Amino acid sequence: MYLSKLFIPITKDLPAEAKIKSHQLMLRAGMIKQSSAGIYSWLPLGFKVMKKIEQIVREEQNLIGAQEMLMPTIQSSELWKESGRYEDYGEEMLRIKDRQGREMLYGPTNEELITDIFRSSIKSYKSLPQILYHIQWKFRDEIRPRFGVMRCREFFMKDAYSFDLTDQDAKKSYNKMFYSYIRTFNRLGLKAIPMSADTGPIGGDLSHEFVILAETGESQIYADKKIFEIDLNKYDFSDKSLEKMREDFSSIYAVTDEKYKEKDFSKNVKKENQIKTRGIEVGHIFYFSDKYSKPLNCLIDTQDGKKISVKMGSYGIGISRLVGATIEANYNNNIMKWPKSVSPFDVVIIPSISKNNKENLEKAEKIYKELKKQNIDVLLDDVDENMSNKFKKHDLIGIPYQIIIGSKSEQNKYEFKELNSESEILSLESIKSKIKKN
Amino acid sequence: MYLSKLFIPITKDLPAEAKIKSHQLMLRAGMIKQSSAGIYSWLPLGFKVMKKIEQIVREEQNLIGAQEMLMPTIQSSELWKESGRYEDYGEEMLRIKDRQGREMLYGPTNEELITDIFRSSIKSYKSLPQILYHIQWKFRDEIRPRFGVMRCREFFMKDAYSFDLTDQDAKKSYNKMFYSYIRTFNRLGLKAIPMSADTGPIGGDLSHEFVILAETGESQIYADKKIFEIDLNKYDFSDKSLEKMREDFSSIYAVTDEKYKEKDFSKNVKKENQIKTRGIEVGHIFYFSDKYSKPLNCLIDTQDGKKISVKMGSYGIGISRLVGATIEANYNNNIMKWPKSVSPFDVVIIPSISKNNKENLEKAEKIYKELKKQNIDVLLDDVDENMSNKFKKHDLIGIPYQIIIGSKSEQNKYEFKELNSESEILSLESIKSKIKKN
Repeated sequence: MYLSKLFIPITKDLPAEAKIKSHQLMLRAGMIKQSSAGIYSWLPLGFKVMKKIEQIVREEQNLIGAQEMLMPTIQSSELWKESGRYEDYGEEMLRIKDRQGREMLYGPTNEELITDIFRSSIKSYKSLPQILYHIQWKFRDEIRPRFGVMRCREFFMKDAYSFDLTDQDAKKSYNKMFYSYIRTFNRLGLKAIPMSADTGPIGGDLSHEFVILAETGESQIYADKKIFEIDLNKYDFSDKSLEKMREDFSSIYAVTDEKYKEKDFSKNVKKENQIKTRGIEVGHIFYFSDKYSKPLNCLIDTQDGKKISVKMGSYGIGISRLVGATIEANYNNNIMKWPKSVSPFDVVIIPSISKNNKENLEKAEKIYKELKKQNIDVLLDDVDENMSNKFKKHDLIGIPYQIIIGSKSEQNKYEFKELNSESEILSLESIKSKIKKN
Repeated sequence: MYLSKLFIPITKDLPAEAKIKSHQLMLRAGMIKQSSAGIYSWLPLGFKVMKKIEQIVREEQNLIGAQEMLMPTIQSSELWKESGRYEDYGEEMLRIKDRQGREMLYGPTNEELITDIFRSSIKSYKSLPQILYHIQWKFRDEIRPRFGVMRCREFFMKDAYSFDLTDQDAKKSYNKMFYSYIRTFNRLGLKAIPMSADTGPIGGDLSHEFVILAETGESQIYADKKIFEIDLNKYDFSDKSLEKMREDFSSIYAVTDEKYKEKDFSKNVKKENQIKTRGIEVGHIFYFSDKYSKPLNCLIDTQDGKKISVKMGSYGIGISRLVGATIEANYNNNIMKWPKSVSPFDVVIIPSISKNNKENLEKAEKIYKELKKQNIDVLLDDVDENMSNKFKKHDLIGIPYQIIIGSKSEQNKYEFKELNSESEILSLESIKSKIKKN
């Protein structure tokens, strides 16, 4: 892609309404545009990052045997009356009357609807366990939407639901998802800490939230650095090994301020391992047994001919929110550097262009074609602008690798720079292999 | 995937509410489940087909340089008041009040919103032409939703918008999209006829709808068979060649009953080339110049310093509707056969299984692993059920290739069948290459 063709309305103004750095960056780099309070359009750059995150989440869900499907955004109120949550949910639920006067709503979550689908489809213990998930837009009518995509009204989320015969089986599904979440956040280039959590309005008695470290996070967290040293590769996919994995994570101190006690922290965590910082919740998993299956009468025939309520859990990852959270974790000293797995492009070529000299642009175009052939997703900055402005712009766009074609490039060697590092003079072959290694 | 693990609630009942064959098939094969009038959940089988269609549409949009982005489902009413369509749209628009009492709506289309994004981003002729598109859920509050996903309320659509400086340039964008649509429907295994059309509520003076042949279609069509003989490969991507392409299509007789005149049809189309059948609209493109850019004040600086309204077109493909339309075009004599490009699986292995003999199942599992290694997406029917029921079930699921492991399989040869054809006895190597060829 040539930058002059890319629909990327970069702005130099610092938008007044943007209080945190992800919101500022996303507006300035033309990733999103607000269309009304807490509702955004995703412009090509932002959309591309969000899609990459979505795809990694999808692959990791598929890997544990979860099956993708899709529930609609608009739901009937009937199921919510069956479960008793229609009144409970309050004003955050966007309530709608259709032209026939029927009470509808824009789904804020899907426990009721998935339970309805399940109860009309699966009757026998033989078909269990099952994990279903979807990735869909949801709506919560926040009274004060703010912080850009971090607390908006229309947001993109993966939610999964597990169905098991017994509490014991259900915990195996819970552990699988726990494992999947750790893998997912690793692949996204984020350090996520699983923390035992309260279940809130979803209900249930077992819950973890996954929190990434960022100074601008919404909650204070206290943790033992050792939690980042757990190597996922040492667990296999057996139930026993996954149970051990969750125990290993749980045995290391990590809490939000609600559960924090100074005495415990200093007793349990060595001084040099103490992490005190802020965090952003990017995922939340719940086990709530028959909380929804019971009122909705979702029954399964057991092997000995009885009927019992299916045991359920639900598992969310905020995909649009992760775009903002990734920026909060990686945008420092006015330089954004995307993790390679979710960067909008693999590399950008930045030629120094002047009106009388198009030689650098021609060199850049040659390299562009070479890299394209290798399936490297490359951006070419063909805009006629001075280099200092270009570098400032690319500090916003955040592509981790730059090939700079200017005074330092020699015959067949070019200046190659990884953001936040020193540049090197390298041959195109070395550059290719550096990019491909990641 | 093993069929016993797939979430696919197949039902033998013919659902009373389903009047057309795509609706019947999708309910019976467990592809969708209605959640309220005209609103469906997409279960794994249906979801997979829809995603494949979406991906082909996306690839073909990208190929002509269109850039993907995403607009939200919920819009403010303000822009619609600016364009004057807020009142015009009538009751099909789902109108919503949020908790602050603001008038919102669920987008039925996006001309207003994209114009707003464009006017705040692009100011100069230098940045033109641009084509932006998104693939998003939309809502039209049909008074009588019916025919399953063919006429539902919440539906999945690709809509693209082109922006040009002059009418002449805009027609070049229109031709590119025309070309892209023909390619897209070809890849989807559908025979689509472009027909000059009225512009309706979108407005403008140039429009084509793309109609596929299906006896159950909503409109009567009359066409010359020669229209299917136009070879897209003979056009290149130059403006001149694409203009010639559209002329070539337009020169061949093809109309819906509104424009049909018997005299013209018999005069212009040879008897043996006359097609009289019904058709389903699966795409619609419009050129409407400054119909929205003018009231919304979307101005572009020209090279000689003037300001003019940008010239726009819009281009839709109904993605969820295409799932139904593909069934209408391919489900005959109680046998569904998916076009290979959108089939939920590449091939299904059907072993004859009995309680006392698991040998066939073991053979099937061995073949399954072999095919998986080759990146072939294979379904294994491991359900303990007689072969006659299995075949009936797979006539519904519609996977085009079957490997049957039963009485006819020899040492290292297996019965291989393409739906609607005779079966052959083939080695696994030959089977692999047959599947991969497609």
